[in-house]
Amino acid sequence: MNRTIDLNADAGESYGAWTIGDDAALFPLLSSVNVACGFHAGDPLTIQKAIVLAKQHGLGVGAHPSYPDLPGFGRRILDAAPDQVYADVLYQVSALGGMCRAAGVSLRHVKAHGALSTRAWTHAPTAAAIVQATRDFDSLLPLVALPATLLETEARRLGLPVILETFPERAYLQDGRLAPRSLPGSSIHDPQEAARRALMMVQEGRIEAIDGGFFEFEVDTLCIHGDNPNAVQIAQAVRAALEAGGVQIRPVPEVQA
Amino acid sequence: MNRTIDLNADAGESYGAWTIGDDAALFPLLSSVNVACGFHAGDPLTIQKAIVLAKQHGLGVGAHPSYPDLPGFGRRILDAAPDQVYADVLYQVSALGGMCRAAGVSLRHVKAHGALSTRAWTHAPTAAAIVQATRDFDSLLPLVALPATLLETEARRLGLPVILETFPERAYLQDGRLAPRSLPGSSIHDPQEAARRALMMVQEGRIEAIDGGFFEFEVDTLCIHGDNPNAVQIAQAVRAALEAGGVQIRPVPEVQA
Amino acid sequence: MNRTIDLNADAGESYGAWTIGDDAALFPLLSSVNVACGFHAGDPLTIQKAIVLAKQHGLGVGAHPSYPDLPGFGRRILDAAPDQVYADVLYQVSALGGMCRAAGVSLRHVKAHGALSTRAWTHAPTAAAIVQATRDFDSLLPLVALPATLLETEARRLGLPVILETFPERAYLQDGRLAPRSLPGSSIHDPQEAARRALMMVQEGRIEAIDGGFFEFEVDTLCIHGDNPNAVQIAQAVRAALEAGGVQIRPVPEVQA
Amino acid sequence: MNRTIDLNADAGESYGAWTIGDDAALFPLLSSVNVACGFHAGDPLTIQKAIVLAKQHGLGVGAHPSYPDLPGFGRRILDAAPDQVYADVLYQVSALGGMCRAAGVSLRHVKAHGALSTRAWTHAPTAAAIVQATRDFDSLLPLVALPATLLETEARRLGLPVILETFPERAYLQDGRLAPRSLPGSSIHDPQEAARRALMMVQEGRIEAIDGGFFEFEVDTLCIHGDNPNAVQIAQAVRAALEAGGVQIRPVPEVQA
Repeated sequence: MNRTIDLNADAGESYGAWTIGDDAALFPLLSSVNVACGFHAGDPLTIQKAIVLAKQHGLGVGAHPSYPDLPGFGRRILDAAPDQVYADVLYQVSALGGMCRAAGVSLRHVKAHGALSTRAWTHAPTAAAIVQATRDFDSLLPLVALPATLLETEARRLGLPVILETFPERAYLQDGRLAPRSLPGSSIHDPQEAARRALMMVQEGRIEAIDGGFFEFEVDTLCIHGDNPNAVQIAQAVRAALEAGGVQIRPVPEVQA
Repeated sequence: MNRTIDLNADAGESYGAWTIGDDAALFPLLSSVNVACGFHAGDPLTIQKAIVLAKQHGLGVGAHPSYPDLPGFGRRILDAAPDQVYADVLYQVSALGGMCRAAGVSLRHVKAHGALSTRAWTHAPTAAAIVQATRDFDSLLPLVALPATLLETEARRLGLPVILETFPERAYLQDGRLAPRSLPGSSIHDPQEAARRALMMVQEGRIEAIDGGFFEFEVDTLCIHGDNPNAVQIAQAVRAALEAGGVQIRPVPEVQA
Repeated sequence: MNRTIDLNADAGESYGAWTIGDDAALFPLLSSVNVACGFHAGDPLTIQKAIVLAKQHGLGVGAHPSYPDLPGFGRRILDAAPDQVYADVLYQVSALGGMCRAAGVSLRHVKAHGALSTRAWTHAPTAAAIVQATRDFDSLLPLVALPATLLETEARRLGLPVILETFPERAYLQDGRLAPRSLPGSSIHDPQEAARRALMMVQEGRIEAIDGGFFEFEVDTLCIHGDNPNAVQIAQAVRAALEAGGVQIRPVPEVQA
Repeated sequence: MNRTIDLNADAGESYGAWTIGDDAALFPLLSSVNVACGFHAGDPLTIQKAIVLAKQHGLGVGAHPSYPDLPGFGRRILDAAPDQVYADVLYQVSALGGMCRAAGVSLRHVKAHGALSTRAWTHAPTAAAIVQATRDFDSLLPLVALPATLLETEARRLGLPVILETFPERAYLQDGRLAPRSLPGSSIHDPQEAARRALMMVQEGRIEAIDGGFFEFEVDTLCIHGDNPNAVQIAQAVRAALEAGGVQIRPVPEVQA
C-alpha cells in the first residue's frame, strides 16, 4: 500500500493562438506535469510558459515527446523507423530539458505521448528507441510506463528507472491492457467513481477488470486527462479522495547518482 | 595579428529525403560547424548524424537556430515578437545542446541563421532576445556575431562571450556592413581570392572595402558558405592559404567558469 | 445608401484537435464566410466541415489565404518574395475552390488573412501578387479589400472585381487607415456601439474618425471578428440593427461572365 | 498488345531550397508527370514551376497526394482515419487542379504517393477514401492504380476511371505484389534490363515473376522512379526500347463526359 502517490497530467498542449487544457486551473491540483515538446503540440513560447507555471506550483516537470503530427495531435501511429523515433525523442527531450534548465527547474521524467506511447506498449523496437533516447540524454531520468507493457520491459532491460502509471478514468482488462474505447464503460466520466478507483489503485494496488476479476499492479503515478472537459472536477475529486485516505500527493523522488 | 583562427560552416542542413551541403567532404577542412536545429533545416536524425560526424573530425559544434520557416530555409525575415524569438532560440539551442550531450560532445557556440541573424544586426529587441536565450541556457556559451552589429553590442552589454566572425567570400562596406548582394562583386566566387582575403582578415584584421578604404575588425572565426556549389574548393584554398601563412586552424577555446 | 450588405466572418480556423471560433453559433448570423486554407489554420477536414456547414446556412464561401505560419496564426509579416506570395495564394485558393466544388458550392470571393492582408495594404508587389493569383485562378472572382489601400488599387488596376470591406469593431483614421491597436478606443467591444457603427457605415457610407471628422467610403461587406470572445453577441447586435434599419443581409452577387 | 503506352514519373518533389529529381532532364523523356502537392514535397512555387515545365513539354499532369509527412517524404504509413484521408486527398488534388487551371493545363490523373499508395493496396477504407476524394473533385478524373490491388478494386466499384500502372524497375511476385525490397533482385538498376522489361510489359502484358512463372496484367502506364540517381539513363533506355518496338509514348486519352 502506497502512502504517497504522484498525480500527473499533460500540459503545454496549446499551440500559438490555439488553446487546449486549462493549465492554470489544473496545476494547483497536481504534483507533476508532462509538457508537450512541439511535435504534437506546444510551440516554444507555450512550453516556456508551462514550465514557469509548473515551477510556481512546485510541480515535477517531465517531457512529453510525440510523433511529428500537429494535425493529428500525435494520436495517429506513424510507421517511423527506430532510428527516427530515437532521434525525434532525443530532440524533444533535449528541448524540454534545456528550457527547464533555463527556468531553473529539473527535468524529472519522460512520458511518451499518444500514439507513440500506444505503439511502444506492444512494439519492442519503438519501446527500445524511446528508452535509449531517454537514457542517452540522462541515464538517471525515469521513464513513465504502463505496467505490463513492452515499454516497461525495455526500460528495465536497459536499466532505466521506471515510473509506473495507471489511469483512474480508464477501464482495464485483467491482463493489464486498457479496455478498448469502443467498449461501453471503457472511460469513466463520473468524478466520484474516478476518485474511488484512484484510491483503490493506490491503497490496494489493483482495480476491477472489465472482463472479470482484478488487474494487479504497482503504481507510482496516476494520470488525469487534462484535455477532458471535466478534467478539473475529476482532479479535484481524485485529490480529495486521496488526501481523505491519508495518501500524500507529491512527485516521485529524483534518482540519486 | 592572429596566430590561430577558427574556420566554420553551416551543417546538418539536409531534411529527411532532401540533401543540402556535403558534410562529409567539408568537415575535414573545418574546425567548427553550426548545426541546423530543425526550424529552417535539420530533422532530428540529420542533426544527430551531423553531430556524430563532427565529433569524429574533432570539430567544435554549435547550434544554428532560425526563424521557423522550412519552405523559406529561414532566409525570410519574420516579424516575430521578442518573446517568441527568445523561446524559439532557447528551444532550438536546448535541442542541440541535449543531442550534443547524448553524443558526448560539448556545445561550443550559438550562431543565428539567415534572416534571424540579418534581423539581429540592426534590430535591438531581436538581438537581445537571441542573447538572452543563449545566456539563459548557458551564460558561458559564446554567441557568434559579426563585428559592428547590434548583435555584438547586445551580447557585450548582457555579458555574453562573443565570437567575432567575418566572411572571406563576401565584400564589405567601410562601416562593416556586408555589400548588398545586388552590387557587382558582392560575392567572391574564386577560391584563390577568397583565400587571399581570408589570410588578410586573419593577419591584418582588415579587408578592402567595396566603397573605398578598409574595414578594420577583430576576428575569431571565418565562415565558409557550405551550400555553395564550390564550397569544398573554397574551404580547401582558404585552409591551405592559412596554413601556409602559419595560422593554426582550431576552434575558439571554451570559456572557463 | 446601401439597402443590402454582406456580413462576413472568418471560419474554419480550427486545426486538428484545437478549436478557434464557434462556427456553429456564428454562421446563422452571417451571409458570408472566409474559410482558412491550411497555412495559418484549417486542416483539410476542418475546411471541409466549414464548407458543408456554410452550405447548410446558405452562406457565400470565400478563401482566406495566409502566409505559411501555423505557430503565428498568420499574424506575423513574412518577407516573402512576390513569386512566393503568388504561388502560396494560388495554391490555397485552389485548395478551397476544389473543396467547394466537391461540396457543390461556388467559391465566391478571396480575402487575404492577417499579416498578408496588412502587408498588402501598403506594399504594392505583395498586393499585385495576391491579385494576380486570384485572377489567374478565376478572373471573375472578387477580392475583398479595404477601401483606400494598395490592395484595392492593384485589384482595380489589374481588372479584378473588388468587394470593399469595413470593420464595425475597429476605429478608423480620417485617411482610412485603421487606428493602431495601441491607441485607446481602437477596438470596439460593446455590441451596441458596434451595431450603431455598422448601421452608420451602411446607411451613410462613412464613420467618425478617431483623429477628427469622418472617413468616407463605399462598402460592400462588414467584417465580424469571429475569434473575439463576444463575436456572437456582436454579430447578433449588428444583424439586429441592420435589419431594424431596413438593410437586407446577403452575399455580394456573383459577377456574371 | 499495346501500341501506345504512357510513361510517367514523379515531379515537383523539391521543397524550398532543397532539390530532389532533375525535372528538366527527365521531362523530355516522359509523357506524364505526377506532381507533388505539398504534403510530402512540393512547396507552391516548386509545384507551379513543375506544371509550367510539364506544359512546355506537352506532358499530362497529374496530382500526387500524400500523407502529411515532410520529414518522412510521405514514405511512412500514418494511421489516418478515412475521413482524414478523404479530406487530405481532396485538398491536395484541388490545389493541383487549380494551379493547373491557372497555367492553362488540364489535370489528367491522380496518383497516390508512397505510403498512402502502399496502404491503399491492401486497406479498403483508405482505398475508398482516395477514390471518393478524386471522384468528388471530378468524376471523370482517372486514378492511377496497380493491377490486382484494393485501390483498383475500389476505383472500379465506385465507377472511377482507372489507369493501370506497372514498374519496369521493380520485380513482381506471381500474384501481382511487388517483391519486397529486402529480396535480392527486387530492384532493377540496369537500364537495359529495365528497358527489356518495359517492352515485355507493353507488348506481352506480363512479366517474369521472382517466385516463378509470370504475372499477367493490363497496363496503361509505366512508372520511372525520378528520384533514382540513374533515372535519366533508365528513362532513355526504356523510351528507346519502346520506340524501337513500335510503341507510341503518349498520355492516356482524357475521358469524355
